[in-house]
Amino acid sequence: MAAESEAQRELQYEQTLCQRFFISKVGEDWVFLILLGLVMALVSWAMDFAIATCLQAQKWMYGGLDTNVLLQYLAWVTYPTVLITFSAGFTQILAPQAVGSGIPEMKTILRGVVLKEYLTLKTFVAKVIGLTCALGSGMPLGKEGPFVHIASMCAALLSRFLSLFGGIYENEARNIEMLAAACAVGVGCCFAAPIGGVLFSIEVTSTFFAVRNYWRGFFAATFSAFIFRVLAVWNKDEETITALFKTRFRLDFPFDLQELPAFAVIGGGDGGDDDDVGGGDGGDGSHGGDDDDGGVVVVLLVMVVVMALVMAVMAVAAGHVGSHPSPLPRIASGFGGALFVYLNRKIVQFMRRQKTINRFLMKKRLLFPALVTLLISTLTFPPGFGQFMAGQLTQKDTLVTLFDNQTWAKQGLSDEFEYLGILEAWRHPRSNVFVTLVVFILMKFWMSALATTIPVPCGAFMPVFVIGAAFGRLVGESMAAWFPDGIHTDSNTYRIVPGGYAVVGAAALSGAVTHTVSTAVIVFELTGQISHILPVMIAVILANAVAQSLQPSLYDSIIRIKKLPYLPELGWGHHEKYNVRVEDIMVRDIRYVTLNCKYRDLQHVLQGTKMKNLPLVESAESMILLGSIERAQVGALLSHQLSPERRLQALRRKTLSLDRHRLSDASICFQCHV
Amino acid sequence: MAAESEAQRELQYEQTLCQRFFISKVGEDWVFLILLGLVMALVSWAMDFAIATCLQAQKWMYGGLDTNVLLQYLAWVTYPTVLITFSAGFTQILAPQAVGSGIPEMKTILRGVVLKEYLTLKTFVAKVIGLTCALGSGMPLGKEGPFVHIASMCAALLSRFLSLFGGIYENEARNIEMLAAACAVGVGCCFAAPIGGVLFSIEVTSTFFAVRNYWRGFFAATFSAFIFRVLAVWNKDEETITALFKTRFRLDFPFDLQELPAFAVIGGGDGGDDDDVGGGDGGDGSHGGDDDDGGVVVVLLVMVVVMALVMAVMAVAAGHVGSHPSPLPRIASGFGGALFVYLNRKIVQFMRRQKTINRFLMKKRLLFPALVTLLISTLTFPPGFGQFMAGQLTQKDTLVTLFDNQTWAKQGLSDEFEYLGILEAWRHPRSNVFVTLVVFILMKFWMSALATTIPVPCGAFMPVFVIGAAFGRLVGESMAAWFPDGIHTDSNTYRIVPGGYAVVGAAALSGAVTHTVSTAVIVFELTGQISHILPVMIAVILANAVAQSLQPSLYDSIIRIKKLPYLPELGWGHHEKYNVRVEDIMVRDIRYVTLNCKYRDLQHVLQGTKMKNLPLVESAESMILLGSIERAQVGALLSHQLSPERRLQALRRKTLSLDRHRLSDASICFQCHV
Repeated sequence: MAAESEAQRELQYEQTLCQRFFISKVGEDWVFLILLGLVMALVSWAMDFAIATCLQAQKWMYGGLDTNVLLQYLAWVTYPTVLITFSAGFTQILAPQAVGSGIPEMKTILRGVVLKEYLTLKTFVAKVIGLTCALGSGMPLGKEGPFVHIASMCAALLSRFLSLFGGIYENEARNIEMLAAACAVGVGCCFAAPIGGVLFSIEVTSTFFAVRNYWRGFFAATFSAFIFRVLAVWNKDEETITALFKTRFRLDFPFDLQELPAFAVIGGGDGGDDDDVGGGDGGDGSHGGDDDDGGVVVVLLVMVVVMALVMAVMAVAAGHVGSHPSPLPRIASGFGGALFVYLNRKIVQFMRRQKTINRFLMKKRLLFPALVTLLISTLTFPPGFGQFMAGQLTQKDTLVTLFDNQTWAKQGLSDEFEYLGILEAWRHPRSNVFVTLVVFILMKFWMSALATTIPVPCGAFMPVFVIGAAFGRLVGESMAAWFPDGIHTDSNTYRIVPGGYAVVGAAALSGAVTHTVSTAVIVFELTGQISHILPVMIAVILANAVAQSLQPSLYDSIIRIKKLPYLPELGWGHHEKYNVRVEDIMVRDIRYVTLNCKYRDLQHVLQGTKMKNLPLVESAESMILLGSIERAQVGALLSHQLSPERRLQALRRKTLSLDRHRLSDASICFQCHV
Repeated sequence: MAAESEAQRELQYEQTLCQRFFISKVGEDWVFLILLGLVMALVSWAMDFAIATCLQAQKWMYGGLDTNVLLQYLAWVTYPTVLITFSAGFTQILAPQAVGSGIPEMKTILRGVVLKEYLTLKTFVAKVIGLTCALGSGMPLGKEGPFVHIASMCAALLSRFLSLFGGIYENEARNIEMLAAACAVGVGCCFAAPIGGVLFSIEVTSTFFAVRNYWRGFFAATFSAFIFRVLAVWNKDEETITALFKTRFRLDFPFDLQELPAFAVIGGGDGGDDDDVGGGDGGDGSHGGDDDDGGVVVVLLVMVVVMALVMAVMAVAAGHVGSHPSPLPRIASGFGGALFVYLNRKIVQFMRRQKTINRFLMKKRLLFPALVTLLISTLTFPPGFGQFMAGQLTQKDTLVTLFDNQTWAKQGLSDEFEYLGILEAWRHPRSNVFVTLVVFILMKFWMSALATTIPVPCGAFMPVFVIGAAFGRLVGESMAAWFPDGIHTDSNTYRIVPGGYAVVGAAALSGAVTHTVSTAVIVFELTGQISHILPVMIAVILANAVAQSLQPSLYDSIIRIKKLPYLPELGWGHHEKYNVRVEDIMVRDIRYVTLNCKYRDLQHVLQGTKMKNLPLVESAESMILLGSIERAQVGALLSHQLSPERRLQALRRKTLSLDRHRLSDASICFQCHV
């Protein structure tokens, strides 16, 4: 009997030990990060699967009704409208916080501000389902921004779940570190781009980055991207782990040195007066055939001059933000990026300002999404206007075709090239590919800017990425048409690869809109090729320089529109603002509550000010701030204390001194936000 | 006359305007960064050119004397010995600060410590010439670390030069920001790896990274890498801009999912019991041919288990640092990296402890470098022992051959493969390539650890990188021999590419030694291919996890050896140290100076303590610290005040009250470091 209880006790002890070991292990960072990566990879994969199914269904419906154009049109238009309306309604009902990209909110949260309801399960569900429907509709919307938000919610929920086992998850500083890692996971598992994900999340969300967090992001994002791609292999979509939008550019001679000015134009050269490309052309003309060195030196000089020129233009422009409405014939990515942000903000502001429309739309909240979707899907209807802008391609197909290895423009000169498969969409019997590309870029530009204002969970990264790729392709095709046998005609004929230009354009425009350099890395990871590293880097840096001097980033713009509690950074050319001090703008004659103030004082304070929060100080002499209290709370407490019932009660008890005691009770109840 | 002077004045005014504009432009960050990038690219290219010439000269001498082995040996051995001895002597005489890699010193400087003479022109010259000679000798030394130092010196000199034009360069905070950018430039123009350079410099030098600095690093590093590669094109070394060690792995099917465990073994799997590879093998065995899904799932599970296992081993090991001398049959990169750092430190400590040897060597400072060089070059002598370890290859050739696309081990099975050109060096008639590789790894390992202790400007990154590549190649060749027709035998035969393993190994080992993840990015940029991204990332992370739990990074190790004023970080498994508070180690009974203390009090304080700095407080009651004052200063002031002359003077003036006044004067002179 004794031995049995002894054994039992030992067993119990061992169990406790095991439990304690388990808890201590669960508390380790890497367990959390692996779980986060795993969950997010599964979410990302499942969502991609659902979106692909949705898009296939639309294609199937559209294809099945090819006997009647009207029916086809109805199917083409109704399907996305229903999906978007459902997404908007669902999000609105379940969690309005799930609307939009979520990166601006994450930026604010990571700066230490507590935004209520932004990291809850309800928002998570609303965001995942809303996003799936929104993307399944085929509108020009993105997945990246919302994924950062989803990953952060996932991290918050996971840490709340794991806090049931151990105490380490109650550490607030640690939670913020984990949220930062989660942002990296979000981008990482969305694009299967772990390095780009980590860098993008750093650039977008941080001001000061703790390098000790670095490995967390890398670890979780790599694991997540790995699982995400393994799932694709498991589902037999792929034979092995490769990039999401794999390109097959030649490795030996990815691009000619003399193409660099054209790449720079994609990035941020003003391009309006065609000077930059002319410079590259001049470099080509001058070397004539044998004196290659000369050509290279000219190109080198031209590059430096162009860079200096662009920088100078930019520095001047920085002084006159917004006063540059000059019509640029060819809008390069830097300007394009700034324009996109500008357009997006104007649409939102326009919608807000039109009070009659607004009131009507507020009543029928779902009308605006439905109308926008109707408009966009009508315009992309393939037998209609869509035939001029490859309307039948999904976002993914568009990217695949734009990154294609072949040269489309060639077709006019020699008949060797056939548009096969989905490439067919870019061809139009009565126009050439340049027209199609220009129409595509122009239409998609305002469509994307408009679509991202719809109140559904959606990002703007992917649409911008696609437009950038199309713009790059346009420049590339122009170059290919200009130099049909390549520029470098010394020994071998290396033709120009317009797909490379598309890659550069995609990185540059998305970099310009988000004000990040890491889109370059994301592009390498997305395409699986790094051969265009220098053109991409140069274009991204130039695009950033131009865009940063003209407009805030898309996320900062949204932060301003939404008036989130975020201190903007002082960017380029704002050094004089460092001289603005707090005392220049602060209010000095402020009403306050002291620890020993009476009912009458409180009432005076409440009557004398309209501030929502009242400061609580130790005494009028020391003026040491103890915290703040909401006006409503003070009012409620006061009316409770001075209510007739309370007074009667107090009279009955005849203990008048108690009242003072109660007031100090109330002051303890003050919600202190020090 | 008046009109003339008017015109002159106008001209002068315009000149002043121009000058002011010029100055304001020169003050802009991007001018500085472009200049820095340009200068560093030129330095890097010129050095590479000089090093290549030196190495060619050695080869030429060695090749020309092929009639007599003894003469050959003498030429082979004398040449590097002379160069290294010259390098050591030159550095010693001109600037001893130029010795070593410089990254530890930069790390310390960027943390705000002023190290004297580390950023001067003398050190710059010594480092550039010393490094060129050291690398020209063909010893296993690296270029990267010194380049970070050279770039920083270049930035410091450039900003001192530009401060002649404008005042912005006197801003200390700005200088530190520029130094951080310079570190990125150093790595960027050394490897033509801008992204990797920025990330590596962040990881190695920063604790908290200001994201606003990010674009500076990217801009300068990209520009520098661009110019560096353009110079190669200009010199007709290359046809266009490509990667430094370009690989040509197939794009369609870079690696099989089931090779991942082997990649993980390279990274950090303990590998000792061959369990991991066995797991991968099991996965291969189980799927048998048609049920591919099963195989993938097994691989997936194995991966998770292996990761968990390794992490667990590592977590346990973290508790017992240093108590793991168990002989690991196959040392994977994580362990290898830790071992390298350990070995390097032990050699330095051994050299210091042996006082008799030490005293002798101190007298003949150049003897140690000469002896080490003699030993290493004797062992690599190609007709001697060098034939078993590809001794005739330079570091660059070694890397090129290790990243080669072909499979060497095949040769034994089928005769289809011929060792062509420099690949010849890896072949030995009486042994196979595995033996050569193992000998190479073992020999190079201690050689590199030894060579990096020579007091010349040199880094350890490249040697470690080469060893890692060789280790990866060994694993790859083993895998290729094991599965001659590839693992994935479903539809197409995709053979295993050992070059991919070499890339993974290089990234993993260098990541382990430096405790960085960004070596992965550097590898992509060096090879120009990103197809192996997931294996590289997994291997690097595992290698980091293992290495970080066993040893400090090489740079931290050097910081400790050199006793630089640097606060070490609290890494993995040191969380309990967070509970050490200042009060646990602070001294409480400290002597201090108050504002109203008398001469006698001051004298008491000076006699009662030996501290170099005395705290100055408001009063003994409030104990509010006002600043600190140097003991020497107090002593000097006191002796001046109490000197016989002063006293006589004071007596003469009969204004004794003045003395008190003077004391408060003295306290104002106190150099306040609040």
